[in-house]
Amino acid sequence: MNQKIDLNCDLGESFGPFKIGHDAKIMPFITSANIACGFHSGDPSVMARTVKLAKENGVAVGAHPGFSDLPGFGRRFINMSQNELKDAIIYQIGALEAFAKAGKIDLQHIKPHGALYNAAVKDETYAEAVIEAIQEVNPELILFALPHSEMKKMGTRAGLRVAHEAFIDRAYNPDGSLVSRSKKGAVISDTISAVERAMKIVKEKRVKAIDGQIVSFGEVHTLCVHGDTVNSVELAASVKKALGKSGCKVMSVGFFV
Amino acid sequence: MNQKIDLNCDLGESFGPFKIGHDAKIMPFITSANIACGFHSGDPSVMARTVKLAKENGVAVGAHPGFSDLPGFGRRFINMSQNELKDAIIYQIGALEAFAKAGKIDLQHIKPHGALYNAAVKDETYAEAVIEAIQEVNPELILFALPHSEMKKMGTRAGLRVAHEAFIDRAYNPDGSLVSRSKKGAVISDTISAVERAMKIVKEKRVKAIDGQIVSFGEVHTLCVHGDTVNSVELAASVKKALGKSGCKVMSVGFFV
Amino acid sequence: MNQKIDLNCDLGESFGPFKIGHDAKIMPFITSANIACGFHSGDPSVMARTVKLAKENGVAVGAHPGFSDLPGFGRRFINMSQNELKDAIIYQIGALEAFAKAGKIDLQHIKPHGALYNAAVKDETYAEAVIEAIQEVNPELILFALPHSEMKKMGTRAGLRVAHEAFIDRAYNPDGSLVSRSKKGAVISDTISAVERAMKIVKEKRVKAIDGQIVSFGEVHTLCVHGDTVNSVELAASVKKALGKSGCKVMSVGFFV
Amino acid sequence: MNQKIDLNCDLGESFGPFKIGHDAKIMPFITSANIACGFHSGDPSVMARTVKLAKENGVAVGAHPGFSDLPGFGRRFINMSQNELKDAIIYQIGALEAFAKAGKIDLQHIKPHGALYNAAVKDETYAEAVIEAIQEVNPELILFALPHSEMKKMGTRAGLRVAHEAFIDRAYNPDGSLVSRSKKGAVISDTISAVERAMKIVKEKRVKAIDGQIVSFGEVHTLCVHGDTVNSVELAASVKKALGKSGCKVMSVGFFV
Repeated sequence: MNQKIDLNCDLGESFGPFKIGHDAKIMPFITSANIACGFHSGDPSVMARTVKLAKENGVAVGAHPGFSDLPGFGRRFINMSQNELKDAIIYQIGALEAFAKAGKIDLQHIKPHGALYNAAVKDETYAEAVIEAIQEVNPELILFALPHSEMKKMGTRAGLRVAHEAFIDRAYNPDGSLVSRSKKGAVISDTISAVERAMKIVKEKRVKAIDGQIVSFGEVHTLCVHGDTVNSVELAASVKKALGKSGCKVMSVGFFV
Repeated sequence: MNQKIDLNCDLGESFGPFKIGHDAKIMPFITSANIACGFHSGDPSVMARTVKLAKENGVAVGAHPGFSDLPGFGRRFINMSQNELKDAIIYQIGALEAFAKAGKIDLQHIKPHGALYNAAVKDETYAEAVIEAIQEVNPELILFALPHSEMKKMGTRAGLRVAHEAFIDRAYNPDGSLVSRSKKGAVISDTISAVERAMKIVKEKRVKAIDGQIVSFGEVHTLCVHGDTVNSVELAASVKKALGKSGCKVMSVGFFV
Repeated sequence: MNQKIDLNCDLGESFGPFKIGHDAKIMPFITSANIACGFHSGDPSVMARTVKLAKENGVAVGAHPGFSDLPGFGRRFINMSQNELKDAIIYQIGALEAFAKAGKIDLQHIKPHGALYNAAVKDETYAEAVIEAIQEVNPELILFALPHSEMKKMGTRAGLRVAHEAFIDRAYNPDGSLVSRSKKGAVISDTISAVERAMKIVKEKRVKAIDGQIVSFGEVHTLCVHGDTVNSVELAASVKKALGKSGCKVMSVGFFV
Repeated sequence: MNQKIDLNCDLGESFGPFKIGHDAKIMPFITSANIACGFHSGDPSVMARTVKLAKENGVAVGAHPGFSDLPGFGRRFINMSQNELKDAIIYQIGALEAFAKAGKIDLQHIKPHGALYNAAVKDETYAEAVIEAIQEVNPELILFALPHSEMKKMGTRAGLRVAHEAFIDRAYNPDGSLVSRSKKGAVISDTISAVERAMKIVKEKRVKAIDGQIVSFGEVHTLCVHGDTVNSVELAASVKKALGKSGCKVMSVGFFV
């Protein structure tokens, strides 16, 4: 197997005195960092530190914009017009781009966060807002999207570079969307299962949905590991090791998408 | 007289449903717009609209970062470390730069807002944070500063392009700082006095302080008019006209600093 | 006609430096003030001033809680759990109650704001959260609700005092809900039409929906006039006068519900 | 020794997804909980849970209002007018009082947080704002204050119930104020030293300042233990045990002040 694969993780989600995640510990095992931009979490100094940390670890950085909802951590849907959402995303990309500039590193990608990611899976208005924001600010940014999502289809059609993303620690619905966190079995916290799942996704480009049906992905370019759980560092390390053993090349998605 | 002078105004200070200022009406009479960046006021959509409006009017745009204090409109001092302040300014510059990019226009300058501007007049820590933010994100940005301020001295020493700013509708202390808004006589709201004052500042490069002493400015590159008062549009129009009549060339500061 | 009717208005919706509405001017013409509690708008000092102003005008005060969404002015739906919504409402009631206490006046009622009001019309979860909040903090508060809403039915069933509210300047759907502000014809801005409408609602207890169908209200206890439009003061004055002429007794709803 | 002493701790300082402190674990060892009110930290649901938890543990509850500064955790001074500060405190007391009401428990006390506490030590304007807020909302609330502070003197003069507070894990300046957290030696993290210090404060009513001078407290009614450090639970348990052994009665301050 000579496949290339990226490992991405949501990072920089601390805020002021509030610490979330294990950023420094997980960096060595990933290749793309999705950095919160201050709306669902993250603050200017956290962003500065996270960009610096990513650079030191040779990890590519991307914007991780979310709904403006700190108490809900961007996991609550907010009903916004396409235009105000587009502007909110432009704002967040720009803010992160400034820290990337200060750190002398380019933004590689963008991955919407939480409820915004989920809204853009199904709703054209939300997907379109994300896509227009990218086109207006930096059309070179790679868009991370579920293979079965509206956002993926529309991004591809719009000529954007789109990376197909798969989740190794989240259960899937048969239509390729993620099982909501509020449902039982939505999160796979056992490392061994998640690693097996990761290997299967990469090799077979498909996964078993929560009801047993098969979800096919076509290509998969990047695997998401989460950074906020207790065993996320161990999980990321194990996945990286297993992928390496199987002959996969683990590298930032910007090199091959 | 063949002098060049810029007219700047704080704009984009509406927020969500809350309207402040007369942006569309004042744009024809100014040459530089200081655009709020979402911390003391302004929101992403207001920023997008204001950048567009400036471009349509041939007005240069600059960042107008402030303390993160919407209820206090950035007029309340907040005690921040140099690093967190620097990061907060980088964030705000970046956010505005994204809208400038989307609008295909360059950022020309930066002017700190309210309590931050006042803090950077006297306090090296605050001035240094502003200067470092500029150096890290975009060293071409012109820094607007009071001629007698720490920020001006330090900015010049650091090799930044610095524009000396004078206020036509604010009273001065004998040390060249502005009289606090909370004091009587701090704001000059009468148009005729303000226009006379503007002409005097431009021709004689000095102004009479609130106690009658003379404050000399050396060079003056840009005059600030405020956009939030009832008669600000009339004032800006009158100043521009009077400057034109006297043979001054009113143009964006980027052309001559 | 010997009917009693209350006139209510949303007030205290300014925030920091941002002014909204004509609170002082409209107070003489209303009998119940719905005061914003700092989440969709309003800030502590605005709340203090508005309670004081209401008391001076003999106007009863009520809490006007909304989604925590200042940039969207509480008009954007936010997907919250019943518990977190209940707690957010308890918080807002408590904050206003403190100003009522400081002003030596009792809270009379509660009226959810904007998107929260609309959500509680149809969605049991949202309605239940409002009702539970009232029961836990102050079961004497009168709940303002559309006669055809879930919130009204559930509030009545729960043993709360419920005031049926009608809108004189908003168009109705045939099911008794309000036509969304985003649709044409949603807001009736002409004073004469609005006054006629008010009189009809009070006398006939029904209104013509946007499609011509009749919506019957049963009882109507309070009429909402808005305070943020240019002619809202004139409208409130005209409605109050017309009601008085027709023999209605215009008084705070707490006297008769 | 037959002395009565209260043990207080700042609690409810989590916010949305962000966890701070070990509230459930420390509750059994304290007698008064200072609960954050949503400005420097805490959110409505956290407040609800913390009040409930306190009640279950027989711990008295008090308001812990702070500057409106989530990213700075209320530890950054904000320059506010006396009136806007008073209103901000009334708002916070009211919000917490609503949860106390819902939980059928009375508020016992108020203790300003962080930079607000420190400002009220020396600055009459800030102390006066706190005192007026208490007088307007609930004059029965016991004010926690440093024995040597302006706030203590003014609170006593105003006829409030004032509890003298001492800190067992913070170093003192010779004038009885706390050594700033930014200075070396400001925080005493070693349990044994802190327990010794606690016993000395209670028995001798004095403490050795950072420069070796003696600070006398007169009366001491309540000892503050912090809940956000790793060993805070152990520390609180040890202090409570040591006090008990020495014959002190550890109980909520409302019983004896």
